[in-house]
Amino acid sequence: MGYTFVLVHGSWHDNQAWAPVIARLEQQGHKAHAPTLAGHARDASKSVSHADCVASLVDYIRRNDLKDFILVGHSFGGTVIQPAAEQLSDRIRRLVFWNAFVLNDGECLEDNAPPHYKALFDQIEQPDGGVMLPWPVWRDAFIGDADEALAKKAYDMLSPTPRRSHTDKVPLKTFSSLQIPKSYLNCTEDIALPPGPDFGWHPRMSNRLGLYRLVQMPGSHEAIFTNPALLADKLVEAGRD
Amino acid sequence: MGYTFVLVHGSWHDNQAWAPVIARLEQQGHKAHAPTLAGHARDASKSVSHADCVASLVDYIRRNDLKDFILVGHSFGGTVIQPAAEQLSDRIRRLVFWNAFVLNDGECLEDNAPPHYKALFDQIEQPDGGVMLPWPVWRDAFIGDADEALAKKAYDMLSPTPRRSHTDKVPLKTFSSLQIPKSYLNCTEDIALPPGPDFGWHPRMSNRLGLYRLVQMPGSHEAIFTNPALLADKLVEAGRD
Amino acid sequence: MGYTFVLVHGSWHDNQAWAPVIARLEQQGHKAHAPTLAGHARDASKSVSHADCVASLVDYIRRNDLKDFILVGHSFGGTVIQPAAEQLSDRIRRLVFWNAFVLNDGECLEDNAPPHYKALFDQIEQPDGGVMLPWPVWRDAFIGDADEALAKKAYDMLSPTPRRSHTDKVPLKTFSSLQIPKSYLNCTEDIALPPGPDFGWHPRMSNRLGLYRLVQMPGSHEAIFTNPALLADKLVEAGRD
Repeated sequence: MGYTFVLVHGSWHDNQAWAPVIARLEQQGHKAHAPTLAGHARDASKSVSHADCVASLVDYIRRNDLKDFILVGHSFGGTVIQPAAEQLSDRIRRLVFWNAFVLNDGECLEDNAPPHYKALFDQIEQPDGGVMLPWPVWRDAFIGDADEALAKKAYDMLSPTPRRSHTDKVPLKTFSSLQIPKSYLNCTEDIALPPGPDFGWHPRMSNRLGLYRLVQMPGSHEAIFTNPALLADKLVEAGRD
Repeated sequence: MGYTFVLVHGSWHDNQAWAPVIARLEQQGHKAHAPTLAGHARDASKSVSHADCVASLVDYIRRNDLKDFILVGHSFGGTVIQPAAEQLSDRIRRLVFWNAFVLNDGECLEDNAPPHYKALFDQIEQPDGGVMLPWPVWRDAFIGDADEALAKKAYDMLSPTPRRSHTDKVPLKTFSSLQIPKSYLNCTEDIALPPGPDFGWHPRMSNRLGLYRLVQMPGSHEAIFTNPALLADKLVEAGRD
Repeated sequence: MGYTFVLVHGSWHDNQAWAPVIARLEQQGHKAHAPTLAGHARDASKSVSHADCVASLVDYIRRNDLKDFILVGHSFGGTVIQPAAEQLSDRIRRLVFWNAFVLNDGECLEDNAPPHYKALFDQIEQPDGGVMLPWPVWRDAFIGDADEALAKKAYDMLSPTPRRSHTDKVPLKTFSSLQIPKSYLNCTEDIALPPGPDFGWHPRMSNRLGLYRLVQMPGSHEAIFTNPALLADKLVEAGRD
């Protein structure tokens, strides 16, 4: 009956953001896991590599011996579930990319982001390797569908993200030949990446999946805060057989 | 009060798929006809030309002496209502293209489809000229908004489509100068063609109509199965004066 | 609690079109002003410049000593709120572009419209400098979501628009460096400009704003007539802090 989901957060986030989504999934009869990636959360060291992020996810799945699950990646999380899928292909029922990066072999996240983000992150990177997202960018480009109170409350849950997770090149030798079914969930008001053919999420990233299922819902990049119940329902629609 | 609709199905379909749409249209006070095109349906010979498909529609309309109707084409059906409109322009109140191909003079359907479809169809074409759509493509790219049970039930209603209907060049000498009003109905989750400027339905196909009305609704390429009532309502919105 | 809105209409419109939107805003506790721009409305002289339109807006705001307001521009109105924002930057809380033009320094509206509009307007411009929008274009490209009765009723409220407001080049020396927050409200069925990268509203115009908030709603270019209550609610979502 129910499915098992493994939910992988994006940059500046940790596992806590998924709590209302998990509550809804469980209410509908599903199970969900939401590990925090290496280098994420407030107290984590920011000097981690992209490979460390991937290893922390793979370790979590192996340690809990999870099988036959739907693996979901949000935003930066897409770059983590791709190499994880290469290592764990026989455990994964379907991959779901939710407004997530889909890298080509040898690319990094910032290869697929607009130049103004790179310039901004160069300016604000801290000595420990962490980068915090500025409030004005968060407010309008990330969570424009929230009222100001919710935007602030959610901003308080963020923490600096390890810059190397955006700049390390990611080897993906077998991803494009994996036989795992794939879905892309697109929030139609997501402008965390500038919409359009050059830098938009969909269809630029989704079309890289080859054969895939498309699910869409209204909402910003942060529907996890502004509409977690609908997000959970759409993850089921994207993840089901 | 009510309008008369002539509903032209797409590839792999026949007239049966329209039944719930027709029920809704009639409930709202409209009339609807849904002929099966030559070479379509399970028991039909697959060795028909594109011109045979067009002739079967034109004959149906003349035989039933239909006048002042809204002519709707879905997907491949767009390539059939275009030449039919050239022959029957004085009978048609409005043309509605529902996620349909809009050909330029002398093109065929496959001229407007991505190369991977041509390669696939070359591989799977049967000796009798028929081509069946593979289940994985159907499940995720055509009917991604259905649950698995509905996806299977609808797949069982499909039959091989005559390949020549996709590859015969279609002369369209007068279509662009016809004075018939035109609408395009776009399902926003339709990825039967890969979304984007190169191969997407909208606005690539719709903009070829010149002055047109745009109606959109949520749903996949097969909203005829997943949401026939809303589809009927949107066909009225697209087709009304 | 409530916000103050200044609502700037588009071409062929005057302040009357905003009445149902204002009623809804006031019902929700907001205040709203809707001046008629120079050269607009039925009895106005059509021999006005773009600068006259801007001056009429700036004068209205100064005369009423409006401060701390959300300045909204629809369609052509975008080209008016841009220079007004340069002159009144300290009075404006946020700029909202609703399916509006966003000009680069020294451009005019017709620099950003498809050639077929220029050709049409050249043909139908009257000796007094006014241009009326033809009914077929209005019916399908501007207000395709209305039934015919509403489309006609709304058409009767239009009046010729001064051509120079579309062809005068607009100096915008400081707009791109203004620190005023910005939003773009996009109606998803708006095809008054042909959708797509060459001429579409969004993201072609919206991306010119740099950092901005995106709000979307269903509807045509003329949701002011077809769904004024939702339009008002979305203007609040776009305009709030």
